[in-house]
Amino acid sequence: MTQAIKIYDTTLRDGTQGEGVSFTVAGKIRVAEKLDQFGIDYIEGGWPGSNPRDMAFFEEAQKLTLKHAKIAAFGSTRRASLRAEEDPQLQLLLDAKTPVVTIFGKTWLLHVVEILRTTAEENLKMIEDSVRFLTESGREVIYDAEHFFDGFCDNPEYALKTLEAAKRGGAINLTLCDTNGGKLVSEVQDIVSQVVAHFPGTAVGVHCHNDSGLGVAVSLAGVEAGAVLVQGTINGVGERNGNGNLTTIMPNLILKMGQELNCAPNLSKLRDLSLFVDEMANRASDNSAPFVGPAAFAHKGGVHADAAAKVKHSYEHIEPELVGNRTRVLVSDMSGRSSVMMKAKEIGVDLDARSPELKDFLAELKELEFRGYGYEAADASFKLLLNRFLKGKKDEFELIGYRVMVGHQTSLKRTVSEATVKVKIGDEVHHTVAEASGPVGALDDALRKAIAPAFPEIMEVELIDFKVRILDSQHGADAIIRVQIESTDGKEIWGTVGASDNIIEATWEALVDSVEYKILLESEKQA
Amino acid sequence: MTQAIKIYDTTLRDGTQGEGVSFTVAGKIRVAEKLDQFGIDYIEGGWPGSNPRDMAFFEEAQKLTLKHAKIAAFGSTRRASLRAEEDPQLQLLLDAKTPVVTIFGKTWLLHVVEILRTTAEENLKMIEDSVRFLTESGREVIYDAEHFFDGFCDNPEYALKTLEAAKRGGAINLTLCDTNGGKLVSEVQDIVSQVVAHFPGTAVGVHCHNDSGLGVAVSLAGVEAGAVLVQGTINGVGERNGNGNLTTIMPNLILKMGQELNCAPNLSKLRDLSLFVDEMANRASDNSAPFVGPAAFAHKGGVHADAAAKVKHSYEHIEPELVGNRTRVLVSDMSGRSSVMMKAKEIGVDLDARSPELKDFLAELKELEFRGYGYEAADASFKLLLNRFLKGKKDEFELIGYRVMVGHQTSLKRTVSEATVKVKIGDEVHHTVAEASGPVGALDDALRKAIAPAFPEIMEVELIDFKVRILDSQHGADAIIRVQIESTDGKEIWGTVGASDNIIEATWEALVDSVEYKILLESEKQA
Repeated sequence: MTQAIKIYDTTLRDGTQGEGVSFTVAGKIRVAEKLDQFGIDYIEGGWPGSNPRDMAFFEEAQKLTLKHAKIAAFGSTRRASLRAEEDPQLQLLLDAKTPVVTIFGKTWLLHVVEILRTTAEENLKMIEDSVRFLTESGREVIYDAEHFFDGFCDNPEYALKTLEAAKRGGAINLTLCDTNGGKLVSEVQDIVSQVVAHFPGTAVGVHCHNDSGLGVAVSLAGVEAGAVLVQGTINGVGERNGNGNLTTIMPNLILKMGQELNCAPNLSKLRDLSLFVDEMANRASDNSAPFVGPAAFAHKGGVHADAAAKVKHSYEHIEPELVGNRTRVLVSDMSGRSSVMMKAKEIGVDLDARSPELKDFLAELKELEFRGYGYEAADASFKLLLNRFLKGKKDEFELIGYRVMVGHQTSLKRTVSEATVKVKIGDEVHHTVAEASGPVGALDDALRKAIAPAFPEIMEVELIDFKVRILDSQHGADAIIRVQIESTDGKEIWGTVGASDNIIEATWEALVDSVEYKILLESEKQA
Repeated sequence: MTQAIKIYDTTLRDGTQGEGVSFTVAGKIRVAEKLDQFGIDYIEGGWPGSNPRDMAFFEEAQKLTLKHAKIAAFGSTRRASLRAEEDPQLQLLLDAKTPVVTIFGKTWLLHVVEILRTTAEENLKMIEDSVRFLTESGREVIYDAEHFFDGFCDNPEYALKTLEAAKRGGAINLTLCDTNGGKLVSEVQDIVSQVVAHFPGTAVGVHCHNDSGLGVAVSLAGVEAGAVLVQGTINGVGERNGNGNLTTIMPNLILKMGQELNCAPNLSKLRDLSLFVDEMANRASDNSAPFVGPAAFAHKGGVHADAAAKVKHSYEHIEPELVGNRTRVLVSDMSGRSSVMMKAKEIGVDLDARSPELKDFLAELKELEFRGYGYEAADASFKLLLNRFLKGKKDEFELIGYRVMVGHQTSLKRTVSEATVKVKIGDEVHHTVAEASGPVGALDDALRKAIAPAFPEIMEVELIDFKVRILDSQHGADAIIRVQIESTDGKEIWGTVGASDNIIEATWEALVDSVEYKILLESEKQA
């Protein structure tokens, strides 16, 4: 059954309840524009009554020219003691000047009695009055039935009465919220079906959370049961375990369930949207996010990589390009010839599958991986290795040596690090020194100082990530240490790796590869 | 409907296909022991044919005395050209000497023809022969039907024939694998129901992936449809978007669906298990993981935090203690009084809950945690901290300072590290020097040399684990680094921690705590 499903994004309101998620007003505006461009139907911008930043957003949002989306302000039903037109919180909702207002009300008698401390009857009046007041003030009103599923399980008659009250007030949509997020698929499906049957001709929505790890599943179950609006957040950000993840729900609705979504033509921009929102929320992206994560179409096992090279969809549930993602091959000690071939192609190196060099390269790679190098997240080191091995390409500079000194004096409460680096470029020897609080920073600085006179582009490079992994950590101080570095020049990002039983040496190797890769990039640009 | 559901863990095999997941042999053994203690039914240890490390695991595993779990070796059906008894890969499976062998075979004709390049008929023989060969060799055989759901959608008759072949061969369980991980809940439920009906009296299992964000949902749907075995991994690690997450599936089965699981009595250790496996895989834990993540019962919104204080279950879908988790209120969160009290009691330090020192200690602890120290796995450091703070206990020796020098000369292909340490014990200054390939080893040696004259017991201490975690790694070379060390004297094992923006300093702190803890142990023994 194909339906037109509306997507209601609450990243900017419920999403900000998540640990570590916060947006600036300007960031919220940029996210709203991006959501509109993507084709989202409703964008909930905040709760005007809850903090001054949200009100500032609504002021700014009035200046936006949106293509399709409607902005919604979020709030609650009136207080028990006041008339709707006297309730300051409802007044603030009008002041937000949005075409849509979404208000939540209580479904569960436990909450009515113990949290609101009012009566079942008064709660129904609060719902109806509030919705009517907003509707009569010219707003499209969406009614969020808080704790609907818990409330329905406790007392189905009363739960339905709260929805009837909202409908009488003029709500254009009744959204059933699994506020505690603990419901199972079959429960949600059953209850949504009953509500849809009870309100023929009225649009029903679902708003789910991920507390049982089922946020996506229950949202989809809601649609299967007849809901025509889905609330959720980009990347599933939100309180506790997060909200229904729209980044997963939307491709499932479009690609797997054949539903009609306004954003369907932009689906290939889904990964973009996901990265953009993480960036705005200052949040590290989830590597293994379904559909959009870098691991979503990454193959590691020899068998799978091999088969994926033969018949792509044999190990991929959709074409990655449909959501703006791509197939990746992880080079690891499980991998054979075909994954190396795929990897080489991916990074733009031509390889002949039957060349004897390839066999030697595979042997070399196995040996390096045995010694602790890992190329899964170190494409740049892998490319340099391929170049050195297959093209006999020589490094741009010769490393003569380095020294690092770390000294600590308790009486001074101070640790200092000093590094010296000696390199030869052409006939010239550069011998430099740098100081920093840690040895990595000191080495990094000294190396750049030594290389920069010949390759000034090096100064654009910045270290953005630094990871240390102890392999075989049971060997204590003698264990092999793998260091992975991520660098950027503001345009590209690349990963390099080093391995040694000496942590400084491993770091040094990864730093050198990072610098060499930048020089390679620059020379490729000029070629 | 209550059933006895078996849990089949494949963290150590399919889990290691995940990006960035790899275990040492010793780490695998420790995980297997932990899974057994938790009450898991089957532990898949690896694929003996795929790499030498997995075979080494099975050799070690034979020495384990398990309480309940059965170890399984994983492999594939015989090759098309060989008889089962001649197939080297099947032979390796027997060499693994496990009570259970799990083999996968092809369901989907696309794979039979295009990947295996054999016939539909031969594939059925391969399945039956291989299962029979292993069964007759005395193994319990679980049959994993690879790509079962895709294969079934393509050709249900043939899909069922492959299962019939496995059953004829003697398989005790037919596990249906959603290898590509893209199936929806309703599809899985429907197909599992059909298979269960087709094989009355035969145990059916499910093995799901998370490519549509439904890994947990489809696993649970499988059980609702009659499956009695669930395969998955701890924390959902695994290829691409990961496997069915047992850390979420198990509490749902027990708490929400009322199923009987052998591990049910240990459910309150679920968070422990989750942290342990992440630690062994050297993987950062997912803050927002359902049930076990620190955010799972964290309340941020004023309304929710307030209501949760009034009526706990008003915003919590289960009691957090059931899975070893706890309620947190964000913003003002800190290691609370009660957890410090519990921790102190656990390590044998008497604390008065009303003492003013405790309040100061909490403030100090909060400050240290802010600076990067973490005490979850560093009981020894925590005890030393408590002693220093509450008892004003002075350290046994005074550290004057240290120096570490790392030098590398390319022409000699050699990196050397030298450390000097200066300490004062009583009135005597000890100034020592040591050399090693890495700076950690050199520091460790020099420190012991300096302390040993006064505390000869120090020479019994051995470093057995060494972990480095970069906190806030986005800060590149300036990031805070946390070093965790595990030490033993052959009788006890203890963990210590150091944190600094200088990796050498962080290591030094953890080394010093380790040595001090040993001295404390010795003095307690004499007291």
